[in-house]
Amino acid sequence: MSHEKLVAHYRRVHHLSHVSQIVGWDEAVMMPGGSGDARAEAMATLERIRHDIAADPRVAAWIATAKSEALDATGRASLREIERSYARATALSPTLVEAQSRARVRCELAWREQRKTSDFEGHRPLLEDVVRYEREEAECLAERFGVSPYDALLDRYEPGLKSALLDTLFGELESVLPDLLEAVLARQSHAVVRTPPAPFPSEQQRALSLELMAKLGFDFERGRLDPSHHPFCAGMPDDVRITTRYNEGDFVDSLMCVLHETGHAKYEQGLPPRLRGLPVGEARSTAVHESQSLLQEMLVCRGLPFLTFAEPLIRRAFAEQARRAPEAFSAENLTRLCTRVARTAIRVDADEVTYPLHVMFRYRIERALVEGTLEVRDLPEQWDAAMRRWLGISTGNNHRDGCMQDIHWGSGLFGYFPSYVLGALLAAQLFEAAQAGVEDLNHRIARGEFGPLDAFLRDRVWSKASLLETDELVVQATGKPLGVEAFERHLRRRYLGAV
Amino acid sequence: MSHEKLVAHYRRVHHLSHVSQIVGWDEAVMMPGGSGDARAEAMATLERIRHDIAADPRVAAWIATAKSEALDATGRASLREIERSYARATALSPTLVEAQSRARVRCELAWREQRKTSDFEGHRPLLEDVVRYEREEAECLAERFGVSPYDALLDRYEPGLKSALLDTLFGELESVLPDLLEAVLARQSHAVVRTPPAPFPSEQQRALSLELMAKLGFDFERGRLDPSHHPFCAGMPDDVRITTRYNEGDFVDSLMCVLHETGHAKYEQGLPPRLRGLPVGEARSTAVHESQSLLQEMLVCRGLPFLTFAEPLIRRAFAEQARRAPEAFSAENLTRLCTRVARTAIRVDADEVTYPLHVMFRYRIERALVEGTLEVRDLPEQWDAAMRRWLGISTGNNHRDGCMQDIHWGSGLFGYFPSYVLGALLAAQLFEAAQAGVEDLNHRIARGEFGPLDAFLRDRVWSKASLLETDELVVQATGKPLGVEAFERHLRRRYLGAV
Repeated sequence: MSHEKLVAHYRRVHHLSHVSQIVGWDEAVMMPGGSGDARAEAMATLERIRHDIAADPRVAAWIATAKSEALDATGRASLREIERSYARATALSPTLVEAQSRARVRCELAWREQRKTSDFEGHRPLLEDVVRYEREEAECLAERFGVSPYDALLDRYEPGLKSALLDTLFGELESVLPDLLEAVLARQSHAVVRTPPAPFPSEQQRALSLELMAKLGFDFERGRLDPSHHPFCAGMPDDVRITTRYNEGDFVDSLMCVLHETGHAKYEQGLPPRLRGLPVGEARSTAVHESQSLLQEMLVCRGLPFLTFAEPLIRRAFAEQARRAPEAFSAENLTRLCTRVARTAIRVDADEVTYPLHVMFRYRIERALVEGTLEVRDLPEQWDAAMRRWLGISTGNNHRDGCMQDIHWGSGLFGYFPSYVLGALLAAQLFEAAQAGVEDLNHRIARGEFGPLDAFLRDRVWSKASLLETDELVVQATGKPLGVEAFERHLRRRYLGAV
Repeated sequence: MSHEKLVAHYRRVHHLSHVSQIVGWDEAVMMPGGSGDARAEAMATLERIRHDIAADPRVAAWIATAKSEALDATGRASLREIERSYARATALSPTLVEAQSRARVRCELAWREQRKTSDFEGHRPLLEDVVRYEREEAECLAERFGVSPYDALLDRYEPGLKSALLDTLFGELESVLPDLLEAVLARQSHAVVRTPPAPFPSEQQRALSLELMAKLGFDFERGRLDPSHHPFCAGMPDDVRITTRYNEGDFVDSLMCVLHETGHAKYEQGLPPRLRGLPVGEARSTAVHESQSLLQEMLVCRGLPFLTFAEPLIRRAFAEQARRAPEAFSAENLTRLCTRVARTAIRVDADEVTYPLHVMFRYRIERALVEGTLEVRDLPEQWDAAMRRWLGISTGNNHRDGCMQDIHWGSGLFGYFPSYVLGALLAAQLFEAAQAGVEDLNHRIARGEFGPLDAFLRDRVWSKASLLETDELVVQATGKPLGVEAFERHLRRRYLGAV
């Protein structure tokens, strides 16, 4: 059976991805500072070999034969995902893949130091290398798939996504968000929010994080939590690694990062074991992934029901601080803290109202970079102009808080940013469906009963892995195609008190 | 140039070894408990691919052509090591390599739990799997190289080593050690050794470890220290990972483990960058590696000069404990603590007088296991008989402290144990040469001046990597072939006060 040959073959790719994920996690969390060059070389070779296996010429014949084999629905979906993976791999030359991996790791490692000193000029040549290879990849993929170069990169993260859809959705958001933001800011300007008294030692924060992760169902037998420069989720379904950074002045910040990454982790840990090792067994896309982290963080954990449940745990974790300012630790005040809206320079610190604005201008800039209508040297100027236009903020030559704040582009993640907004839209849509489908959901969350919501997500999203195309997944899970309405309703309800 | 093709080819093997080392370290230090099965599969695929590249049929032709190329001495040594590596790789089938890796990782992971409960019966089938593949590898290599199966396995760790040499050296030790041990025990029975008052919190131990590692020249830009079940040194020259375990009741134990691994690490970090990525650029052998760790730990750090230097640092690290029992922290008492001799059941806790006895009976048992004259099921009985004969101790059915105490066999490291004794012999021989070659060595060590000794080792050992065969290395570095005399002199001097 050719499909069985394909399955065995792709398990090897999966195993190398496993190795690559662990080594990538190590690079961000454990690797000593002087080991970067050697590591970049080792990872480039690994990526090259993984690519060579994924693009093995025998696969073409196996796919051709497998198409005439009698396959069940799962087998057909599996074959579709294998075909997609194979087409993408064979569109790229092995030397490109190797050079690209090397350029990305080098740029990423240098960025960690260069960002500290806002050293854009030092960073520029490294980022230019990355952009050159991204353009080359975009060209190769565009030619193979008959799409625009930027759409070809979008497709890496969200199969089938076109910028035309983004333009529509982002246009709708643009017509709503600015006024909505003004209204929220006006409303919040009267609210009294008490700041819990710092410091919050990292060890206390970590203990609370672990406790809440466990309550939310993170499986520590198949995952772990560590500190890193920037929070992320890596690893594989049987070994999920999430990270956070501890700000001793503000525990909410780090805690919400942990809960966000916990959402990613539960999706990975919830993928069906029977499909393990196959392309069809992987998470559907980065947008669906973001929907799971944002649903967990934004829809659940920043809301009053969850914070009602969490309040006593938080008070116990920071007992001394809570004695000093008991009212700052009430569920109501914690909710106000978790839903403060402000125009800020840094995307990762942004609230859910302004967050799409951060993404929408990045989308325009990265598309221009890929299409060659913008060069890296002009990035700081363009960034500042966009920041001023979209958020009314200028960071001037403080590149650290400007165009050097994210590592995405340095890591070659062009086409990734839109996933954050698509994820927010889907999260709102899924949570509306869950509210309709799970009786008494808010009360259950307030009692710490997360099982019913997880069961809903497992049924509609996690167990589906990549069996469905994203469009189908969204319609089957929420009853309608992806749109901005549920997100808008959520914002109006939470931030403007609409019913 | 064919040699250049070989160089490029072997760099890829090196990169995969790099990845494999990091993932292996992760498995022992970071991996969650439930991730073992997935990790065993991923690592098996990685090993298989590394083997396939190392055994690439094109290499044979390149080697043949390279032999007629004009190469300098380094090039010729490089070619010799590549040829050795290629011959070993091609002697093994890819399926054996993959199955072997899987069996080893599974056995190792299971051992961590099974050892705790002395569960030999649970462990037995997993170890039998490993032994079966070891025998198969030994047969393949023996046939290819025309040596005995056990010698073929020895050669994996110490190229060219034959059990005939081990029989000679071990025979000489056997004729000396038992009487020497009796004399040392009689002499020490009168000594007053003060035990520093526990507890020693892990954090204090870790801080002291890091401080002494830095003083000894460990490069933290290219390495790190972590806790693990069992101390080891892994990684690559540009990213060396050492581990220890903290016993809060006895800081000497953990500290000496750290300093031992620091010796391994300095050898790796001292390998010449110009040969990086080539077989000839790697450490010569496990015996030479052990000579570096044992020289550091046994010859240097357990001696009065080093402990004179370390005393104030140790007192400061454990300030409160040192106030309670100041005399226990004198350099003289610390030296007595570090050189106590006793018959004990556990090899890793053994002193340098009894250590060879632990190895010598393991050598006989593992040879019999490889040759098929002993089966795994008979291991507990044989072990206990050997323990009684060689060390006068019985551990009965306490397999945890008996035949399940080491993970070596479970990890497939048959033929490795003898390296510990060869390393001890070479360490003593090198230290004698250093005493003769470095003026005032002991006083310098006592003043914390480790540079001159490091320069000696760098010149004689580290910079040589695998440029010389071990025999040549030993003669060039110490003026004579490997023997037991320097080791015996060292023991008599340190433990019996001989001059």
